[in-house]
Amino acid sequence: MQVIHHISELRAAIRLAKAEQGRIRVGLVPTMGFLHRGHASLLESARRQCDLVVLSIFVNPLQFGPNEDFERYPRNEEQDLALAKAAGADIVFLPSVTEMYTRPTKTTVSVAGVTEPLCGASRPGHFDGVATVVTKLFNIVQPDAAFFGLKDAQQVAAITQMVDDLNIPVDIVPCPIVREEDGLAMSSRNVYLQPEQRRQALVLFSGLRLAERLIREHHGEMEAAVVKEALVKHISEAPLAEIDYVELLTYPSLEPVNRIAAEAEIIIAVAVRFGATRLIDNAIIQIPKRNDMK
Amino acid sequence: MQVIHHISELRAAIRLAKAEQGRIRVGLVPTMGFLHRGHASLLESARRQCDLVVLSIFVNPLQFGPNEDFERYPRNEEQDLALAKAAGADIVFLPSVTEMYTRPTKTTVSVAGVTEPLCGASRPGHFDGVATVVTKLFNIVQPDAAFFGLKDAQQVAAITQMVDDLNIPVDIVPCPIVREEDGLAMSSRNVYLQPEQRRQALVLFSGLRLAERLIREHHGEMEAAVVKEALVKHISEAPLAEIDYVELLTYPSLEPVNRIAAEAEIIIAVAVRFGATRLIDNAIIQIPKRNDMK
Repeated sequence: MQVIHHISELRAAIRLAKAEQGRIRVGLVPTMGFLHRGHASLLESARRQCDLVVLSIFVNPLQFGPNEDFERYPRNEEQDLALAKAAGADIVFLPSVTEMYTRPTKTTVSVAGVTEPLCGASRPGHFDGVATVVTKLFNIVQPDAAFFGLKDAQQVAAITQMVDDLNIPVDIVPCPIVREEDGLAMSSRNVYLQPEQRRQALVLFSGLRLAERLIREHHGEMEAAVVKEALVKHISEAPLAEIDYVELLTYPSLEPVNRIAAEAEIIIAVAVRFGATRLIDNAIIQIPKRNDMK
Repeated sequence: MQVIHHISELRAAIRLAKAEQGRIRVGLVPTMGFLHRGHASLLESARRQCDLVVLSIFVNPLQFGPNEDFERYPRNEEQDLALAKAAGADIVFLPSVTEMYTRPTKTTVSVAGVTEPLCGASRPGHFDGVATVVTKLFNIVQPDAAFFGLKDAQQVAAITQMVDDLNIPVDIVPCPIVREEDGLAMSSRNVYLQPEQRRQALVLFSGLRLAERLIREHHGEMEAAVVKEALVKHISEAPLAEIDYVELLTYPSLEPVNRIAAEAEIIIAVAVRFGATRLIDNAIIQIPKRNDMK
């Protein structure tokens, strides 16, 4: 496994691999590091589908708001490299901020629509930062496929829209959420949680399961507001939980849903703060068509 | 010369050329058609520097304002194909609007800074449209080099900035302005001009020459305002000319210039309306350093 810090070296390494191995499929797993089993599952998918697996680790300042956790975002290079190697990465790309932004970028890639609700509403500018850095990484690596975790389902929707709109020749591969034993979605930010916050954070997962059960019990025939209300009530039972949003939208178009039945695919998405730590989680549900349920 | 209307066919044709010819250099000349000798010079540059020359002809609705000339923009496919062939294009890519925008695009590429003065001020949204469609064309063709005319010097500055900021692996090759015998810069829009407008349109070129002479006579030691004033006065002598802007800026950063001497490279840029027709022209001047002039 090669560890590379500079764009020119990365391009040379990929060029060399192509020259040596002929037509190869290059997979990119873009991350912000502090890797966990969720990231490992992305690397394993890439390993199965590609000949050359590039992992990028870059905490992108552009996607953090001024009061967010860019400075204190957890980093552990040594542990990341060990996990990357075990999960089958061929190249780890670890650029510095000045390597990625030689001068402050004047160019922004913006995706309208899908980036507006959910995290887009509470984190203005976040998805511009994501779309811009992902475009840069795609241009640097020129992968055939890129692997993203569905915990950031809105990010997957935004990147898919961007790739489609801009004719970017990269296959976007969404990968399922990986969870701790007790159901908490894996996140680099889980490390921020105090023990009691960690315990109460389970309401995200249990709430999503509750909502899903409710919808299935009603065969999808119900008002979205009823589901949201039950979910808000459930999460609010955790005294340390402060709800940022609880939403039920179409997926991947992320449009409002009033009555559920009409929708083929929906997402129940939540963002909840425990102290300064903001956690997100979601469930994407296929509502069978009415005919299928009879 | 192949004429191709669909993205998938274009990609297949380029893939085939690469498979047959090995490592080839692909050149892209993006245009809006109604080709003239200026476009021919771009194709000829591409022909000299590249193995496969792709000309795109696409009148991009995204870069036209609601009151601009998208609908009436001149088109002549037959003439364009003849010129393309004579100038050495291998492939002409002629997509429809729905081929390029299968659905309305939600993704926008924006370049701040260099797009704000000049045409950016009088044509809001124009450069977003340019940056977005050029990004799409780059993703579709994946050229090694792309050729742009310096008549649209601000466009060259914006695309260069974008390529740099987004790590797009394309060399941007700016090509000199090509002029009619009498000095009028070649433009597809010249066809709109009535005979008397056409005659008076020469003030753009003669004004730029005047400004340049003035600067050189003063060895670059003068206020930008004095140059602008002389240029405005000269253009205003044409009764049909309505000035949109007359500016003197740094190039390619397009920042304001007060006193000229301090600047290594400046652009004198003008936009003038004759009736409904808006013409632009410019001169990029290297001001020798003071030491060089002694």
